[in-house]
Amino acid sequence: MERIGGVPRVGMVGGGQLARMTQQAAIALGVDLAVLAGDPAESAARVVGRTVLGSDRGMDDVAAFAAGVDIVTFDHEHVPQEVLRRLEADGARVRPGADALLHAQDKLAMRTRGAELGLPAPRWRAVAGPAEIAAFAEEAGWPLVLKAASGGYDGKGVWVVDGPDDAADVVRGATEAGVRLLAEEKVDFVRELAVQVARSPYGQAAVYPVVETVQRGGVCREVIAPAPGLDPDTAIAAQELAIELAHSLGVVGLLAVELFQTADGIVVNELAMRPHNSGHWTIEGARTSQFEQHLRAVLDLPLGAPETAAPVTVMANLLGGSDPDLFRRFNHVMAKDPGLKVHFYGKQVRPGRKIGHVTVLGDDRDDLLARARDAAAYLKGDDS
Amino acid sequence: MERIGGVPRVGMVGGGQLARMTQQAAIALGVDLAVLAGDPAESAARVVGRTVLGSDRGMDDVAAFAAGVDIVTFDHEHVPQEVLRRLEADGARVRPGADALLHAQDKLAMRTRGAELGLPAPRWRAVAGPAEIAAFAEEAGWPLVLKAASGGYDGKGVWVVDGPDDAADVVRGATEAGVRLLAEEKVDFVRELAVQVARSPYGQAAVYPVVETVQRGGVCREVIAPAPGLDPDTAIAAQELAIELAHSLGVVGLLAVELFQTADGIVVNELAMRPHNSGHWTIEGARTSQFEQHLRAVLDLPLGAPETAAPVTVMANLLGGSDPDLFRRFNHVMAKDPGLKVHFYGKQVRPGRKIGHVTVLGDDRDDLLARARDAAAYLKGDDS
Repeated sequence: MERIGGVPRVGMVGGGQLARMTQQAAIALGVDLAVLAGDPAESAARVVGRTVLGSDRGMDDVAAFAAGVDIVTFDHEHVPQEVLRRLEADGARVRPGADALLHAQDKLAMRTRGAELGLPAPRWRAVAGPAEIAAFAEEAGWPLVLKAASGGYDGKGVWVVDGPDDAADVVRGATEAGVRLLAEEKVDFVRELAVQVARSPYGQAAVYPVVETVQRGGVCREVIAPAPGLDPDTAIAAQELAIELAHSLGVVGLLAVELFQTADGIVVNELAMRPHNSGHWTIEGARTSQFEQHLRAVLDLPLGAPETAAPVTVMANLLGGSDPDLFRRFNHVMAKDPGLKVHFYGKQVRPGRKIGHVTVLGDDRDDLLARARDAAAYLKGDDS
Repeated sequence: MERIGGVPRVGMVGGGQLARMTQQAAIALGVDLAVLAGDPAESAARVVGRTVLGSDRGMDDVAAFAAGVDIVTFDHEHVPQEVLRRLEADGARVRPGADALLHAQDKLAMRTRGAELGLPAPRWRAVAGPAEIAAFAEEAGWPLVLKAASGGYDGKGVWVVDGPDDAADVVRGATEAGVRLLAEEKVDFVRELAVQVARSPYGQAAVYPVVETVQRGGVCREVIAPAPGLDPDTAIAAQELAIELAHSLGVVGLLAVELFQTADGIVVNELAMRPHNSGHWTIEGARTSQFEQHLRAVLDLPLGAPETAAPVTVMANLLGGSDPDLFRRFNHVMAKDPGLKVHFYGKQVRPGRKIGHVTVLGDDRDDLLARARDAAAYLKGDDS
């Protein structure tokens, strides 16, 4: 396959909505994005011309896919380390690389490295069994949080446990599934924040404004950019933390840092090394979307301006409801709110499934929040 | 193919950059866009998953393509009337329809209908030979403009002729090629303007601000939105003209009206019924891009807000130069101007070929124009 205009071929492993939205940015940059997807019905596979079908975690399929592109990047963190290291040994340009990605794949590695770097974090400890959890609880108190270092079981990787009996249940399941655990104190947070930074191989970094992420039922429902009322010192501290972390870990591409804001400041909750739900607002709300920024970073191009396009941008996730006919519902929300931006990921509507998002931008935060929530609620169709 | 979320399947005939950019909007709306392209290397065919290869003008291929989608629309005006009418007779939803599209395909039909509607136009006449041209020149003077009513020959469809000898040459070529001609007075214009309107089957219309289009060497080089210093009465008159025309012709989708501004007001130059080069600025510069708006119109969804996202937006076309390595040149322009939006259509770089565009938005028009021109000139690589 020839390189038109000299533009390298980028391959994204994984066919979800992040790859789908990356395709929008790839089209503008003249990048022939290739996607490795497990099924032609996946969100990105439906729209990307250069879709390769195969296992997006298996050695042979990922290696074959990598051989057909100039740069390999990811829609998720699930490609095993042994696959990543084999790609690198074979000379593939893997961005972010295995060393960096480890810290988005393995929460123990992330906490261990974070401690070395002096990152603010909840109290935490690697725990092998009930005795270690009980010892940790004496310091951190009940309830506490148990996390699978990587993976999980029964579709979960995080458990809030109220006491030793709960904890023992989690340990039993984790042991059966061969999953390592860490315990973390349950942070008494005021709200959740996130900050995204992009870093290129050249070493350039560009950081977006800190946003507030609003969760309900354990699911991110809204993102408000920038985070309302955040004092500038804390905002700058969060941005500097993200930049330092990206450099220290050698991240190439996007790094999303999820934070808790507490009465005493910020602590790091989770990391992701790819475009992230907390950055979907940037498609319309920033001069450079997170998807374009990720491509520019992995292509080692100069990064784009992360400046906001409006004083406030609000994004609300669309969760599926019981009505499969989303299109009919488009009519209502688009007629009511012509400025609303609707993003539907081309995924079958199923109750509770994240199937899209809406974005509004302007000046009046309360009004924007109401518009975004109204649209998301109507598109869901049930009581939200 | 199932309809995910009830979203209809839209098929776009033609695989150029307009279809390519429509795919960006289709991805957001959850539309599985299909494209009928002649070659897998075409701009849209490189990135659209549902690309069908075939003749984008031939009866059988277009009919087969139409049978696989719910709505047929177009990246160009070259599908013959007989093909369009056959599709409609077969029950296809063709948007815009054959009756409307005729006026973007046939300049005689456009001028005739324009006269019935009382549209401001240059003096014009259908001309079969030198005698009729000479008679017209007695009214309109030399030089005058000869236009092929549809098609053309030797890759041209418009000729400025200085006198009877020039005119005779054009008539000879046109006769050999079987092309009908019309003569138009050479308008003494101050500048060129364009206005775009979208119309849905429901009858809703949404009009964008009037823009200035800057041509050099017969090629559109820059678009400034809104048109600098245009008096509000003229702007409103142009917008009303576009809306009236869209309703009168029964346009569904986008209508671009290219205008001359003269000392006495505006006159209609050309029509296009699809997304148009004069509207590329809307991708970043308007709340709803022309590509999203076209899709919303052909899907009979409520139209999006056409409001501008900044006081001024400037788009400059990228013409190919002699350096095929455009990507290397990305580095320079992106480093110099992180707010610049680069759009490369994935077309082989050839001297003078329209291969992309750049867009900048902000407050200071002179600064934006300089930035856009600088970037276009550097990416071209030669003296522009």
